[in-house]
Amino acid sequence: MSTVVRNIHRADAGAIATLERLGASTVHEAQGRTGLMQPYMRPVWRGARVAGSAVTVLTPPGDNWMIHVACEVLQKGDILVVACTSENSDGAFGDLLATSYKARGAKGVILDVGCRDAAEIAEMKFPIWSRAISARGTVKASLGSVNVPVVCAGVAVKPGDIVVADDDGVVIVDRKKAREVAAAGEEREKKEAANRARLQKGELSLDIYDMRKALAEKGLKYVDGPAE
Amino acid sequence: MSTVVRNIHRADAGAIATLERLGASTVHEAQGRTGLMQPYMRPVWRGARVAGSAVTVLTPPGDNWMIHVACEVLQKGDILVVACTSENSDGAFGDLLATSYKARGAKGVILDVGCRDAAEIAEMKFPIWSRAISARGTVKASLGSVNVPVVCAGVAVKPGDIVVADDDGVVIVDRKKAREVAAAGEEREKKEAANRARLQKGELSLDIYDMRKALAEKGLKYVDGPAE
Amino acid sequence: MSTVVRNIHRADAGAIATLERLGASTVHEAQGRTGLMQPYMRPVWRGARVAGSAVTVLTPPGDNWMIHVACEVLQKGDILVVACTSENSDGAFGDLLATSYKARGAKGVILDVGCRDAAEIAEMKFPIWSRAISARGTVKASLGSVNVPVVCAGVAVKPGDIVVADDDGVVIVDRKKAREVAAAGEEREKKEAANRARLQKGELSLDIYDMRKALAEKGLKYVDGPAE
Amino acid sequence: MSTVVRNIHRADAGAIATLERLGASTVHEAQGRTGLMQPYMRPVWRGARVAGSAVTVLTPPGDNWMIHVACEVLQKGDILVVACTSENSDGAFGDLLATSYKARGAKGVILDVGCRDAAEIAEMKFPIWSRAISARGTVKASLGSVNVPVVCAGVAVKPGDIVVADDDGVVIVDRKKAREVAAAGEEREKKEAANRARLQKGELSLDIYDMRKALAEKGLKYVDGPAE
Amino acid sequence: MSTVVRNIHRADAGAIATLERLGASTVHEAQGRTGLMQPYMRPVWRGARVAGSAVTVLTPPGDNWMIHVACEVLQKGDILVVACTSENSDGAFGDLLATSYKARGAKGVILDVGCRDAAEIAEMKFPIWSRAISARGTVKASLGSVNVPVVCAGVAVKPGDIVVADDDGVVIVDRKKAREVAAAGEEREKKEAANRARLQKGELSLDIYDMRKALAEKGLKYVDGPAE
Amino acid sequence: MSTVVRNIHRADAGAIATLERLGASTVHEAQGRTGLMQPYMRPVWRGARVAGSAVTVLTPPGDNWMIHVACEVLQKGDILVVACTSENSDGAFGDLLATSYKARGAKGVILDVGCRDAAEIAEMKFPIWSRAISARGTVKASLGSVNVPVVCAGVAVKPGDIVVADDDGVVIVDRKKAREVAAAGEEREKKEAANRARLQKGELSLDIYDMRKALAEKGLKYVDGPAE
Repeated sequence: MSTVVRNIHRADAGAIATLERLGASTVHEAQGRTGLMQPYMRPVWRGARVAGSAVTVLTPPGDNWMIHVACEVLQKGDILVVACTSENSDGAFGDLLATSYKARGAKGVILDVGCRDAAEIAEMKFPIWSRAISARGTVKASLGSVNVPVVCAGVAVKPGDIVVADDDGVVIVDRKKAREVAAAGEEREKKEAANRARLQKGELSLDIYDMRKALAEKGLKYVDGPAE
Repeated sequence: MSTVVRNIHRADAGAIATLERLGASTVHEAQGRTGLMQPYMRPVWRGARVAGSAVTVLTPPGDNWMIHVACEVLQKGDILVVACTSENSDGAFGDLLATSYKARGAKGVILDVGCRDAAEIAEMKFPIWSRAISARGTVKASLGSVNVPVVCAGVAVKPGDIVVADDDGVVIVDRKKAREVAAAGEEREKKEAANRARLQKGELSLDIYDMRKALAEKGLKYVDGPAE
Repeated sequence: MSTVVRNIHRADAGAIATLERLGASTVHEAQGRTGLMQPYMRPVWRGARVAGSAVTVLTPPGDNWMIHVACEVLQKGDILVVACTSENSDGAFGDLLATSYKARGAKGVILDVGCRDAAEIAEMKFPIWSRAISARGTVKASLGSVNVPVVCAGVAVKPGDIVVADDDGVVIVDRKKAREVAAAGEEREKKEAANRARLQKGELSLDIYDMRKALAEKGLKYVDGPAE
Repeated sequence: MSTVVRNIHRADAGAIATLERLGASTVHEAQGRTGLMQPYMRPVWRGARVAGSAVTVLTPPGDNWMIHVACEVLQKGDILVVACTSENSDGAFGDLLATSYKARGAKGVILDVGCRDAAEIAEMKFPIWSRAISARGTVKASLGSVNVPVVCAGVAVKPGDIVVADDDGVVIVDRKKAREVAAAGEEREKKEAANRARLQKGELSLDIYDMRKALAEKGLKYVDGPAE
Repeated sequence: MSTVVRNIHRADAGAIATLERLGASTVHEAQGRTGLMQPYMRPVWRGARVAGSAVTVLTPPGDNWMIHVACEVLQKGDILVVACTSENSDGAFGDLLATSYKARGAKGVILDVGCRDAAEIAEMKFPIWSRAISARGTVKASLGSVNVPVVCAGVAVKPGDIVVADDDGVVIVDRKKAREVAAAGEEREKKEAANRARLQKGELSLDIYDMRKALAEKGLKYVDGPAE
Repeated sequence: MSTVVRNIHRADAGAIATLERLGASTVHEAQGRTGLMQPYMRPVWRGARVAGSAVTVLTPPGDNWMIHVACEVLQKGDILVVACTSENSDGAFGDLLATSYKARGAKGVILDVGCRDAAEIAEMKFPIWSRAISARGTVKASLGSVNVPVVCAGVAVKPGDIVVADDDGVVIVDRKKAREVAAAGEEREKKEAANRARLQKGELSLDIYDMRKALAEKGLKYVDGPAE
């Protein structure tokens, strides 16, 4: 029941790089508005944007033993994704683990539990997203698993799926769709750039996206007002 | 049922300027501790302080169509106030809308839903308060209304009421009481300045506000202690 | 029932200084993972780290009268700890009280209620942890107590206990155990420094802490994978 | 600022009786899905269904003085609606107040605060909806208002508006629209009765409401499956 | 992107019957403490216990169109499982849908959104678990999917997985492990029956499960007390 | 650090019986509105009212080992009080433990964690209050303590303190004040009985408690209305 899977498939490095540049919001749109973790997942410090292959951990509450175990199977560029068997905010990850994961090449960590040593981690510029910041330490008493499918903050994550995280949250991309989503995201990016330029000049999105007819058909009424 | 009111009354620009300078906490006190939105409404980035006339939107969950509609009726200096028919944290407002609203002269946006593109919006220095930051995009499928009375984060807002927002939260001032509240706020500000100087020297508020007698009458007892 | 205790025992200044340097997470571990307030207690601004003797207040909701009272009995280096008889987020502490407490030598304030004037307090660099930021002001109508035992954010606090607070949260140390906890924390700090150096070089915590045997005995299985 | 308005307009008794029979869900639909309080408002005991004219109270947290005041201006058939200036769950209403309000003819009570004496109130069969059940008593120290417009659990309520409450929650109907909403609700009721009979026989709502074409136009695809 | 899968594999009826008899808590234990939805999922009325094959729906917030669609592909004995793309408590399922689903043979409904017509549904004895009871109706405007893998209340659910629900909550069993889990549950049941008889006579679980040695080895100390 | 204290002082049986009859709300008032656990603590089934001496447990999250340990030191009439080192809702107590505790004479159980087997426990009529109902089972892996002071749901509880629990919640009475609080509660009960009779006849609490003068002095204004 408690298993560590040593090897995982990883997505194409180019696709990962593109997804990282696009960021969570664009990627989320590009794959049909799916894969976003719940918005309680917040960065420990603002300003990071990363993407990488998910190494997953399933842990019982108040225990970080499997996070120590997972570090060995992680490769350069991977992102740790920690799910918990029940809701828990204990500080399962602190500056020592951050030092270790950084040294081994991890690009970031996603914790559906708590993070501690927030000040030190911000100073290290090591990217972490968590459901809480909490000084509460954890034990090393019960097993869990590494590199099994998990549900983390409301999203199903398979080992090797791509994690895209920034100030807007954490999005998971199916490994096999990485290139397709990256391409769709770049398409979207181009369209947005064109629209941004028009919006900056004061044009209305009502006109740019040609919404007036659909609104009228739905029954939207304009009145002059004010009523009083 | 789905209506856009094109024109609204706006308050005196001078009163709005005063309310902006005073900020949310002083304005809230000055009008008898009313009109404060619930404290889950937080700035997307810290440090902004704005006041302006409310252009209101009522939207269904997961839909930002009416926010596109509202941009057309908004005038320079206004603040968008978005209420939702049910609790929802989806990212209904992002950097493209921010670009558009900024270009049209909006001073800020209040969202009882989510905001996305948080990093870009912080960089633009466009002031937004929201109940959540979320990468989740929204559809343009169902109508709502623009410039109707709404309840936003626990406060009734009429179009044209004044929005005052800063790091302490979001306060709504009745348009017709704008000058009266501004005057009361300035009065309060003066008194506070005098008291601040005395407090800085180490005087006690117990003495400055002359509280000892009232405390004694209520029955407060002093003992020397410590008990152990 | 409503009592102000004027004098309290305070812990050894050296122990307090050590606990401050160690910070909340290390202190929490050093005393057997006890005494941590719930993680909803967050700093109003990031970056402070303080320790001091607790001057406690118990207040009814929406009232800050006793906070004015407590200021008189506080001594240089103390930290105010405000508990509330029911869950409440009103802004019971603002920049005037911060000015006063700072002038009297307080090192910080812990509020299981709300804080207002967040921008001003951040600018003053006066350290405050609270359950909320809220512009809502409070009345001075009902009594509470000062320097009685309270439960604040889930932790029992006696007057004179040591408060240790930083970006990771707020920890309470029993006054009589201050030196013992400080010593245990320094011990832990040394061990962590040694381990940090090894982790930075890429050694695994699995090896440093010698976990492999215990994991195997618990039944952890390794498989090569990937499954698909 | 603290005012008791003695008299209010009340809606037509026939309209109120119809709204009561229809219940919260049908009334909410009949008026265009507006006016529903947040779903945290739950009945203290299951099975009641009432409608009546709103007598409103605005109270500070932890204080029930104005609830005592409101009892005098309430008339037979009215429903008390208690809003609070900040989030609070203290038990502001218990069996003595229930006895009093029942004796004066109140049909029920809506509390955006807590209720206590839940067992006794269930036994009395006095209908109460509240945000919490809590033994915590309240003080009589600070004023509020009676029969002023309030926001209660997310809905703006004017004195004399109609309250409709049952196991599904609490809906507010604008007094001036009472008859119109009652008529629309009855219309809806008839249509639903006809549809219910067809559904009971196993007909699909897809066919009864003729949805297939619209679904296809939107792009819904059917596949046989299962995929594996 | 919006797809309805018409056919799904279903588990062995005998295994489903066993899982239903065992109930959520025993099944959860029997499969290694996995598959439990978050505890906010509560029965609309207490006392039901059901198991059946999952027909899944993914819906946008505030929309129940796909629930109408799913009814057609559901077979006698199935259980509907509704996941939502974002957190939402609107009443997407009421007595008309309950009438329809019951007529088509559904054994129950699991809603990670709201349920309305709670009184009528309790009277019909139709088993529903939901995250909220809410009178708020929903639109039929945006597509979702039927019989695709979803995450519902924190658990990954594939079409055809077995849903086991009672007053303790909702557990999902992988379809392919249905018999194995049923067998493990029956084993557990037998052991529990034997232990229950001993516990009823006053024997201690410390002795029945032979815990004393392990506790002592972990370092548990007994003292006589009381200290004071 | 992990200690079981075998013996505790218990309060006078007569005082406990009186407190049980008075119930949580009256006891809470009688001791000056202190000692009430947070209102999220709810009965697993409605209708029980118990009082007894607290046997306390402090447990790590997701672990119920110490609950097995505590059963041995509990005496007839005691009530188990379980606090957890972090927020957790796992079902640490089920029907087997309920069978055991009932057989040993426990009057009830207070859980700041989850409870499972809710249906069976309701049928057994064994009184339990908990923060959640959850099928999730727990491990027996980490030690905690028995009969040490704990904070449970926001209240400090010492072993031997009296627990009073009913549908209104859970109140803790200091063991040494049991008689004094019981006497104050009976006093209050008598006064309430007299007032209840007058309120039933339609007298106003405004008159019975003579509030009109104090209200006027505070500045309450009456106006005739209605304004429109």
